[in-house]
Amino acid sequence: MDGWRELDQALRAGLTPLGIYVCGESSIAIDSSFDTTGNRRIADATHGQEGAEDLHDRLPPAVRDTLVTVSDAVMKKIAYGQSARGVVAEFQAPRWGLGDLRLGESGLILVLDRFEKPGNVGAAFRCADAAGADAVILTPSTADRFNPNAIRSSLGAVFSVPSAVADEDQAKAWLAAEGFRLWAARVETSRVIWEADLTGRVAMIIGSEADGLGDHWCSDEIATVESLRIPMAGDVDSLNASVSAALFLFEATRQRTEIAKR
Amino acid sequence: MDGWRELDQALRAGLTPLGIYVCGESSIAIDSSFDTTGNRRIADATHGQEGAEDLHDRLPPAVRDTLVTVSDAVMKKIAYGQSARGVVAEFQAPRWGLGDLRLGESGLILVLDRFEKPGNVGAAFRCADAAGADAVILTPSTADRFNPNAIRSSLGAVFSVPSAVADEDQAKAWLAAEGFRLWAARVETSRVIWEADLTGRVAMIIGSEADGLGDHWCSDEIATVESLRIPMAGDVDSLNASVSAALFLFEATRQRTEIAKR
Repeated sequence: MDGWRELDQALRAGLTPLGIYVCGESSIAIDSSFDTTGNRRIADATHGQEGAEDLHDRLPPAVRDTLVTVSDAVMKKIAYGQSARGVVAEFQAPRWGLGDLRLGESGLILVLDRFEKPGNVGAAFRCADAAGADAVILTPSTADRFNPNAIRSSLGAVFSVPSAVADEDQAKAWLAAEGFRLWAARVETSRVIWEADLTGRVAMIIGSEADGLGDHWCSDEIATVESLRIPMAGDVDSLNASVSAALFLFEATRQRTEIAKR
Repeated sequence: MDGWRELDQALRAGLTPLGIYVCGESSIAIDSSFDTTGNRRIADATHGQEGAEDLHDRLPPAVRDTLVTVSDAVMKKIAYGQSARGVVAEFQAPRWGLGDLRLGESGLILVLDRFEKPGNVGAAFRCADAAGADAVILTPSTADRFNPNAIRSSLGAVFSVPSAVADEDQAKAWLAAEGFRLWAARVETSRVIWEADLTGRVAMIIGSEADGLGDHWCSDEIATVESLRIPMAGDVDSLNASVSAALFLFEATRQRTEIAKR
């Protein structure tokens, strides 16, 4: 992954870096002996959330000591896409499973089924973070959430929102056992999102734009799955998958807010 | 623009093509003497909405007769991006202004202020179409809605949703004169979207992710502009601009649906 902000979020999520590569210029700033100009530059890069010193202190000592300084040319090669952000880090991808998820107060889970594009996966994480979802569950054929493009389009939310990869039947059984009501987004259903009670423990299952939801997401002996749709008024017959996820999640958040006010 | 579906939508919007370029293979199908295989291929390409024959019939005669057949190699060169879709068409970009907008029943307008990325502009149109918005107004520094990337990410909604480019003061004055209440999306405000009455004639003003809204979108002698925000629960401090647009528009749609039910 690349970018100071994303690095920071990965460290906050408790992931251990295998290596951190910084540009010659930036490395002066991340070293404790940085000057005012360098300090400001890094603070900007981390979106003003904290200075480079804090970040430096939170690096595991083993990594801090092996921080690798590379030339601008090397940075350009190892950075993702066109815009080098001064730091590239390598992590062991975490193998978070359903058992690792800690469910918070919101009782809101997003399930991404067969999302093909890493950019959509990242965008869905960004929405899940904003809506306050407890976790994101990805089916095995969904694009890798730690793909550089997914990381970038999530603005680092792939690190801040707990997640797990689980196959459809496992996920259903786990959600049912944890008392979640399962709602699948389906264009061909009659019930619209505003007509459902989305309070309590609720899992929203969103499929890919191209293929929709897999066959697993129907009611069976494992769990009951109900369907909901976003009403479509115009010519276009679908919404971007991450937009659908946002509308589902924020409708749940709205309903919870309404109840809290009463 | 390229793609059968997009061509179809542009024609439905009343735009006049300057030229239509089809691949050797596809042109057999679009010609009235197409065989079964070719027919099926084109029907698939138009998303099953209609056969090639219908589309062919709706082409203005002058254009129908000058349909240009090109080789696969030429098509690859003139098509947008990696995936050639069998047809590329050239249109005079329409110069729709505020006076051309016909306001329908929904009384819902989306204003895009300084959106830099054509992909976000297109995505916002796709949401506006789905939510049943009457129109989209773009400020002059917003990316061109007829950029190939905007067309593609809108799924053709840049043609189906009426739109106009207007400078900020013109747009404000026009919206106020037409009886629209103006709501600006601002992260720093206290009022959240669920607390506002979004029925009646409402314009939602969304700014770019990078810069937010321009200074023009404050209350002044021209119009009153109120602020609203989407509540953000997590680490990430912003949503994708088209996701914000979707949440604003669909909240208005939800409120209208609630009222209609009473």
